[in-house]
Amino acid sequence: MTHSTHPRHSDSLLHRPRNPDYVAQVQSAFAGQPMLAALGMELVRVAPGFCELRLPFRDDISQNHGYFHGGAIATLADVSGGFAGWSLLPEGMWIVTVEYKTNIVAPGRGEYLIGRGRVVRSGRTLTTTEIEILAVDGDGQESLCATALQTLMAVEAR
Amino acid sequence: MTHSTHPRHSDSLLHRPRNPDYVAQVQSAFAGQPMLAALGMELVRVAPGFCELRLPFRDDISQNHGYFHGGAIATLADVSGGFAGWSLLPEGMWIVTVEYKTNIVAPGRGEYLIGRGRVVRSGRTLTTTEIEILAVDGDGQESLCATALQTLMAVEAR
Amino acid sequence: MTHSTHPRHSDSLLHRPRNPDYVAQVQSAFAGQPMLAALGMELVRVAPGFCELRLPFRDDISQNHGYFHGGAIATLADVSGGFAGWSLLPEGMWIVTVEYKTNIVAPGRGEYLIGRGRVVRSGRTLTTTEIEILAVDGDGQESLCATALQTLMAVEAR
Amino acid sequence: MTHSTHPRHSDSLLHRPRNPDYVAQVQSAFAGQPMLAALGMELVRVAPGFCELRLPFRDDISQNHGYFHGGAIATLADVSGGFAGWSLLPEGMWIVTVEYKTNIVAPGRGEYLIGRGRVVRSGRTLTTTEIEILAVDGDGQESLCATALQTLMAVEAR
Repeated sequence: MTHSTHPRHSDSLLHRPRNPDYVAQVQSAFAGQPMLAALGMELVRVAPGFCELRLPFRDDISQNHGYFHGGAIATLADVSGGFAGWSLLPEGMWIVTVEYKTNIVAPGRGEYLIGRGRVVRSGRTLTTTEIEILAVDGDGQESLCATALQTLMAVEAR
Repeated sequence: MTHSTHPRHSDSLLHRPRNPDYVAQVQSAFAGQPMLAALGMELVRVAPGFCELRLPFRDDISQNHGYFHGGAIATLADVSGGFAGWSLLPEGMWIVTVEYKTNIVAPGRGEYLIGRGRVVRSGRTLTTTEIEILAVDGDGQESLCATALQTLMAVEAR
Repeated sequence: MTHSTHPRHSDSLLHRPRNPDYVAQVQSAFAGQPMLAALGMELVRVAPGFCELRLPFRDDISQNHGYFHGGAIATLADVSGGFAGWSLLPEGMWIVTVEYKTNIVAPGRGEYLIGRGRVVRSGRTLTTTEIEILAVDGDGQESLCATALQTLMAVEAR
Repeated sequence: MTHSTHPRHSDSLLHRPRNPDYVAQVQSAFAGQPMLAALGMELVRVAPGFCELRLPFRDDISQNHGYFHGGAIATLADVSGGFAGWSLLPEGMWIVTVEYKTNIVAPGRGEYLIGRGRVVRSGRTLTTTEIEILAVDGDGQESLCATALQTLMAVEAR
């Protein structure tokens, strides 16, 4: 039995971008964070209230067993949710992370990780997002690595 | 644009109950917690890895503005996730909550709350669940009130 | 070896109330939440950025083993932190809980629970608090039951 | 008024290491995680149930404003708590992070960050830790940057 008979409320949400150039807005914010390039992170897809990122495996983002380090997993979760929120911002606004919680449900083992962030509530000041981190092996098989829940705050860009 | 084009990995999970009488197992656990009856909580539906509960509004579970108190919302989140996990337990095991985090995204305003807990990872020792809390008004209109992320641990029943 | 040689930064914080009648302000907010009286909760002490509450054991706030229900523990954590934040509010402002996370580190077993909330960061819009929940037995022996971390938002009172 | 009159229960905890070589055990675990060296992280101090780490600022761990990236802050929180837990492990055991939540209370601005992790509950299977992240400027002035709460699980080393 699957959960398809118990649909999620959050999947029924329709998000409207307030900046028509929301994709360029997210691309620019992504490009402006040196740590993401240093980790080798890639921006895969942006939609209103949604962002997908990709992080290929490298030794220098690994832990003791040769898997993705928890810090790399958490960073991917943070920014997947953050850019999902950023996609709904009016021009001239900025997103900062207030807090987030990550449950690592399985080791980060695979050729790359996928982070998918979704906005579940977009308020005037605060935005709430959910994130799934998937580990993808050499055959393209996906498995759930982590799930996260995040609070973002919109601030005036400086 | 909806999120339907970016399906959740966790919605593809197939959970198999280890106790064929998992519904009775959850009903018994629910009945054994005096606080739930005192709050007026009702068990609506149980499926493998899923549980739905209902909490009608009453003054004695409200806060300053006449809405559901955050404590009632959090309790509903805790047990919706807890019984979702319980549905997958082998006989003779028990669930305890290790930790959970609740984001209250809108005031708990309505005739009743619905809590829907889903297992996203069921391990030998630990289980991870996600929970949505919906507020339902007099016209049956649902809105997202809270979302939660939870860690459960299986222990030997006493 | 104790931790006394590694002092917490947050213990060095000095909080100044913005409302000289902050104690009355918290007492009034506490009295205005019907669920707290229904649970039997008591306001023990308020200081700037600090609040201590007490919750005596009763059957109707218990779970399967005759201990405090997790929902009662979480509610106590939520409001201990919430009133700690409320103590620093200017007059005419209100606190709402944005989110909180509770780790239940031991069963809630004892004659009563003590909740102690502390503000660790008081911003213009958001306040961050930490909470300890202690279980106290018949001999007055305290043990740690739960620890929590919370985000609050100040809003205009209605 | 400070909080010194409301002492934390967790500061009264006395932790006894189960491995007399707990310092070497933590040093070895730290050295075995390539991502930590890549970020430039330094192990400052280990005590039973306590760990302090240091992370100097570099452009490649920064975000849009030239401050520490949230991913670097979260990674520091994760491992500060993780090694605090590791210090109490018997030989031959390993720590994995189950979940953690980080509240970023101020931008990560300074010459370096300090992470201080403390065990608040050390169980047979699960360990709970609290973490403070401090930002330190050129004059050695510390300010609170983040606070975190974490669940760890002990597993057999491979």
